[in-house]
Amino acid sequence: MKARVIVTLKNGVLDPQGQAIEGSLASLGFAGVAGVRQGKVFDFEVEGTDAETARSQINAMCDKLLANTVIENYSVEISN
Amino acid sequence: MKARVIVTLKNGVLDPQGQAIEGSLASLGFAGVAGVRQGKVFDFEVEGTDAETARSQINAMCDKLLANTVIENYSVEISN
Repeated sequence: MKARVIVTLKNGVLDPQGQAIEGSLASLGFAGVAGVRQGKVFDFEVEGTDAETARSQINAMCDKLLANTVIENYSVEISN
Repeated sequence: MKARVIVTLKNGVLDPQGQAIEGSLASLGFAGVAGVRQGKVFDFEVEGTDAETARSQINAMCDKLLANTVIENYSVEISN
């Protein structure tokens, strides 16, 4: 099965990288863009055919390695 | 409107970061994970109410700043 994990900063956590991108977009002439936040995405294949098992394994992977749950949220999408 | 841009490496482009993550997952005991690819996600607000206008502006932003279209693909999601 294919899985996509999206890791984003929690609300209230400062995102200097996002602010830099917002400034760059403004200086390139793109007006009206606000609140830029940068996150990470992980695409991978997992073995098995049971989506529930895969989801619990992926949640464990996020908690242990892919996300810093103190400052980051994650969401998991699974497709066949 | 809210927009989410997902930038991923094109097929065939080496992803050492993804390989490192795959190795770390294996050494943490997560078996059966393959083909890890890391990408970037950008969340932001755009002014206006016309989704088509917003989409063409965001495509221009991706081409100019957010993605390196030589080695990266991007996808754009817009919601109200």
